[in-house]
Amino acid sequence: MTADKSIKERLGLVQVYTGNGKGKTTAALGLSLRALGSGLSVGMIQFMKPERDSGEYVISKRLENFTLMPCGLSHLVDPENIKQNDIAAAREALSIAKEMLYSGRYDLFIMDEINVAMGWKLIDADEVIRILNERPANVEVVLTGRYAPDEIMGYADLVTEMRMIKHPYDKGIGSRKGIES
Amino acid sequence: MTADKSIKERLGLVQVYTGNGKGKTTAALGLSLRALGSGLSVGMIQFMKPERDSGEYVISKRLENFTLMPCGLSHLVDPENIKQNDIAAAREALSIAKEMLYSGRYDLFIMDEINVAMGWKLIDADEVIRILNERPANVEVVLTGRYAPDEIMGYADLVTEMRMIKHPYDKGIGSRKGIES
Repeated sequence: MTADKSIKERLGLVQVYTGNGKGKTTAALGLSLRALGSGLSVGMIQFMKPERDSGEYVISKRLENFTLMPCGLSHLVDPENIKQNDIAAAREALSIAKEMLYSGRYDLFIMDEINVAMGWKLIDADEVIRILNERPANVEVVLTGRYAPDEIMGYADLVTEMRMIKHPYDKGIGSRKGIES
Repeated sequence: MTADKSIKERLGLVQVYTGNGKGKTTAALGLSLRALGSGLSVGMIQFMKPERDSGEYVISKRLENFTLMPCGLSHLVDPENIKQNDIAAAREALSIAKEMLYSGRYDLFIMDEINVAMGWKLIDADEVIRILNERPANVEVVLTGRYAPDEIMGYADLVTEMRMIKHPYDKGIGSRKGIES
């Protein structure tokens, strides 16, 4: 295969959205919307988010060429007390992610909250890198979530940190349906 | 009107996405997708972005309850050489924004790249704040773009800075259709 520039430019990158601020998952959703508008096909797997009533899940059902796969157990993972079934659920999600990524069906593939799963050692960053290395070359990949491990920050082509500068939690405002979830 | 908690919690906030990293406009688009999925209605005005072939514009036409209004002139604004018609175009966009915001048609209203327009003094931050102050109380507002002025950072309820940690420009990769635009 020749490394001609027009092909090289179409090779998919690995993007990371991490940090303690808002906008990581939503930036990935926005990329999805833009990609769909340009006729691309989008797959998204959510680690540790089993909910099928989120705004993004509901609308994914209405959008052609957008597959969203929520994965995980119904309880929140406690990083101070990781259970065997948390690890099993994350490993299963990674196995589904690999299958989706290798299917050739997606131009853009998002692994939502996978950084947290790696940061909390539910899955191994080196294994994720091996999986990404073997993917179809044109697939753009987005990894979201806090705690992206150093190996992933080093491996990614593009890293953005979302930094919380000001947050309204201190005004007593909780998560609002349709905005935060 | 009683300030009962359930009503108070539904009052719209002002969110700012700023900084030099990726994901500001896309986070706003992702919020839109999520809000639409939850049955909310979304309006978005784009300052200094007249393009009607962007991924987000194309898909907005296919989504019910999502109005996207690109505004601005066909040339890029040069911050070192601001033209009178750049100022006129930004002021016109602000006037359209105000009309949309006050229409009562939107639960979520996004002013895309307005921070840049304020940062470059095309429009006045204090005027934007006066407009936001008078809006219907339930409208969640998102202001995106680099260079958010201090008055806006102080006024907003929630501010996230997108920081570029690593970017592939140095690999010679330019803007890619469907991903960046």
